[in-house]
Amino acid sequence: MTKAMLKQPYKRPGVTINGAEAEVCLWAPLAKSAAVKLESKGDILPLEKAAYGYWQLTTDKLLEGSHYKFMLDDKDALPDPASLSQPDGVHGASAVVNLNAFKWSDANWQNPVLQDYIIYELHTGTFSDAGTFEGIEEKLDHLVSLGINAIEIMPVAQFPGERNWGYDGVFPYAVQNSYDGAKGLQKLVDACHAKGIAVILDVVYNHLGPEGNYFNEYGPYFTDKYNTPWGKALNFDDAGSDAVRHYFIENVLMWFRDFHVDALRMDAVHAIKDFSPVHLLAEIKGRVDELSKETSKPHYLIVECDLNDVRYINPPAQGGYGMDSQWIDEFNHALRVTAGGEKTAYYSDFEGISHLAKAYNDAYVYDGQYSPHRDKHFGSKAVDNTGEQFIVFSQNHDQVGNRMLGERSSELFSFEMQKLMAGAVLTAPFLPMLFMGEEWAEANRFMYFVSHTDPELAEAVRQGRKAEFAAFHAQGEAPDPMTEETFNNSKLQWALPAQGKHKLMLDFYSELIALRKALPALHQLNRKQTFAQADEQQNTLILS
Amino acid sequence: MTKAMLKQPYKRPGVTINGAEAEVCLWAPLAKSAAVKLESKGDILPLEKAAYGYWQLTTDKLLEGSHYKFMLDDKDALPDPASLSQPDGVHGASAVVNLNAFKWSDANWQNPVLQDYIIYELHTGTFSDAGTFEGIEEKLDHLVSLGINAIEIMPVAQFPGERNWGYDGVFPYAVQNSYDGAKGLQKLVDACHAKGIAVILDVVYNHLGPEGNYFNEYGPYFTDKYNTPWGKALNFDDAGSDAVRHYFIENVLMWFRDFHVDALRMDAVHAIKDFSPVHLLAEIKGRVDELSKETSKPHYLIVECDLNDVRYINPPAQGGYGMDSQWIDEFNHALRVTAGGEKTAYYSDFEGISHLAKAYNDAYVYDGQYSPHRDKHFGSKAVDNTGEQFIVFSQNHDQVGNRMLGERSSELFSFEMQKLMAGAVLTAPFLPMLFMGEEWAEANRFMYFVSHTDPELAEAVRQGRKAEFAAFHAQGEAPDPMTEETFNNSKLQWALPAQGKHKLMLDFYSELIALRKALPALHQLNRKQTFAQADEQQNTLILS
Repeated sequence: MTKAMLKQPYKRPGVTINGAEAEVCLWAPLAKSAAVKLESKGDILPLEKAAYGYWQLTTDKLLEGSHYKFMLDDKDALPDPASLSQPDGVHGASAVVNLNAFKWSDANWQNPVLQDYIIYELHTGTFSDAGTFEGIEEKLDHLVSLGINAIEIMPVAQFPGERNWGYDGVFPYAVQNSYDGAKGLQKLVDACHAKGIAVILDVVYNHLGPEGNYFNEYGPYFTDKYNTPWGKALNFDDAGSDAVRHYFIENVLMWFRDFHVDALRMDAVHAIKDFSPVHLLAEIKGRVDELSKETSKPHYLIVECDLNDVRYINPPAQGGYGMDSQWIDEFNHALRVTAGGEKTAYYSDFEGISHLAKAYNDAYVYDGQYSPHRDKHFGSKAVDNTGEQFIVFSQNHDQVGNRMLGERSSELFSFEMQKLMAGAVLTAPFLPMLFMGEEWAEANRFMYFVSHTDPELAEAVRQGRKAEFAAFHAQGEAPDPMTEETFNNSKLQWALPAQGKHKLMLDFYSELIALRKALPALHQLNRKQTFAQADEQQNTLILS
Repeated sequence: MTKAMLKQPYKRPGVTINGAEAEVCLWAPLAKSAAVKLESKGDILPLEKAAYGYWQLTTDKLLEGSHYKFMLDDKDALPDPASLSQPDGVHGASAVVNLNAFKWSDANWQNPVLQDYIIYELHTGTFSDAGTFEGIEEKLDHLVSLGINAIEIMPVAQFPGERNWGYDGVFPYAVQNSYDGAKGLQKLVDACHAKGIAVILDVVYNHLGPEGNYFNEYGPYFTDKYNTPWGKALNFDDAGSDAVRHYFIENVLMWFRDFHVDALRMDAVHAIKDFSPVHLLAEIKGRVDELSKETSKPHYLIVECDLNDVRYINPPAQGGYGMDSQWIDEFNHALRVTAGGEKTAYYSDFEGISHLAKAYNDAYVYDGQYSPHRDKHFGSKAVDNTGEQFIVFSQNHDQVGNRMLGERSSELFSFEMQKLMAGAVLTAPFLPMLFMGEEWAEANRFMYFVSHTDPELAEAVRQGRKAEFAAFHAQGEAPDPMTEETFNNSKLQWALPAQGKHKLMLDFYSELIALRKALPALHQLNRKQTFAQADEQQNTLILS
């Protein structure tokens, strides 16, 4: 056997507590030397060079809670790219966390079959007054009584400051310190399971946030081969890509294994550029299937994908990536246009009731037709895919928060129309998803907010946001994403669901969900037996 | 039916003679007006706006041989991007050609089954003294007596000047004027068929040459989404890509239908960046299959691909692109290292006889192992693919011409070693390919040459070539690619095959080829029944 055929010495990257010792694994292929720098006493622990650009060490000097950085050659020490904790934010030292210390009480938990999922998307910082995992835990009874059995948590990877949707996360292994960190998330998942609620975690594998991004110092995490809306693409198929793939694959496994998360929702996977024979997602699928055999639990993989391409959800034998389910924004777009919403930007492709009927029948509205907005023929046919492979909603964080003012449906559509929209989602032969607060027609907006600590970047975001909405100045000024006020004004108002029309809406949603659970025709998701017909004159949809 | 669902009014782009009239079709989605400008009298024929950014016209004013350009808005007139003829070079006017005027005599021609192909790669400009298709035709008897039944012609799309390998071609529909143009190629194909020789045409769909490249003036032929070694990628999946795909698909069909070409060899398809649900190559395959039904002839699609990814050659039902065959450079690399060739650059991944045995057995040497040169695990397993899906050689234009001095194997390996290498190729369970002159151990080199007419570009190429080989200055200076001398010194010497050791080599090749044809074990390409074992001590390969 040649050297080239040796099995790789890959371990989980970062620092892993293993009994009384810690295992350190770092990928830094260009470094001549690498060391751990302990922040307390300034001790330097040299790492040993291993194959393929990795460095490793087994040491008893790194303990739970130890603060450390890595030093490459003689350069300034930097946080660990696979840090599990950033107690002082994205620029500070990393802290050791023992993920195995948590005492789980969910041995009897059964992840529901995916077909039964009724999903509730929430943002930790604005879901509760506390803006933490603890804050979510306190409200689980509300979700149980609503009939929800799966929450989808917007990304929790450490981001700069304390206010962010999560898509600027830059430490994919570290749970946001201001949310309660890793242990807080473990506690929340355990509590959810005790209440019969599955946890879907939103993870971002298509880019890394701009602030606190030290990845280039460590190795070729990025490639020039592809460009994304967020700059250079992560390197999934160029020289050095083995380690980058490994980094993200181990991240997937960590959430399932160490956090007992039930499903991942992978953000914008169309921006994962990978021309390898086995696409990163297909490799993830294979590794997660192996893990499922070990854990004897189902672990679902859900993707956000803007390609209408069944390759993502088809089985590997057909050349697919084997993802369990995907979001379909087109259902949302068709629904909102049907409900009288504006027809600008991506909504311009949608025609209302006929397209809504098409979404019911075919999942993808564009499955081969010419799309004016995209200026090309677009999409593939999803004839052989099952209902649970598609997730539908009448609003999510994007459709709300990417508006200049962040208006929810509650502000844009009449009360009765909101009910119709809820009905459309909850009777669809797909998995339904609500956006937090929708169930009581929350009045607060959900706005775009950040809290970058780099003043230049903060100003760039502020100006970028202004420029983006310059054409809409008649509607007022875009809220300043950097202020605490914008964040606070985006929080749910928990007094509302007990009041007047908010209570009415909550009762309506609860009953609709109960109906969906009770009626086999609504939850069996048999796409072949469901047929939607549009009556364009009446602007109604007949389901049969 | 909505507007978005209308069938597209796509026609073949460019000017097509249809009886006494000519059909004009131009894609220029951003133009406010478009017109044909007749060069002789300066007449302006306005084009009519059609759907999807196309412009069209039926006119009796464009005749065979008419010189014309297109005018967009009030800008300078430019050549037709789908020009069939550029009599005055890449910057000059386009000329109308009636492709249906040629009188074919090949009605009884039968394209051999792919498994029987014995391929001979040649470059029109340097194969004969004349450097034209006529020059090739005069030498067909030599190829017949050698036993060749398929010639592969390096790209003939119009390039700047008169000397080019063909990969700087910038008018994919126009046959190089200095080679004899479209009619010359039709005549050559007809002559080949009369002699029992199939014609493979090398076509470049991954980039367009830099000089005479007016495509950006017409529309979004390129996209910022991906980068290639040659700059921005052709736009196969971004806004406007329908027309770009159509442009290249119609080009494929033209070669088969109007030039009776038997197979296309598509250059470097790994650089065709396309994340559509149906990859451009898969769409080409579908359209070519349809054409095959019309013509009742097989039309083969061969790709050069640097990905060791069976997706390219697997059937569509398995998620493949359905290509008939692909080049495997790795066989070449393993063979040359085995023969004692240097181990620099891409050869550094190869270990000699054990890798040659692996190429025999598995087609891909790297089918999942770590490749040091690429610094990643690389390749997929080609277990279920047939022998004719792989094309092997001991040298081609790249391995020869990309050397600083352009030395052929004849200069680098002993006479006996050249014979062994020929044996390795012609006994492999794959399709064999020779590079012109190899059969008589041609002594002239095959160098890199261009004849750009843009002085800045010419100088840039000259300097780039010098810089590329700066480290090799001990071996002498890189020949100047711009001089006619470099081109002339790359021509085959047709006096040689009658002389001494050249004649010996020619006889050896002829006998080997005859043997391959005579012995079922050598031409049935049953990969499951062929097994190669490497003896590393003896540096020999035992085939059984």
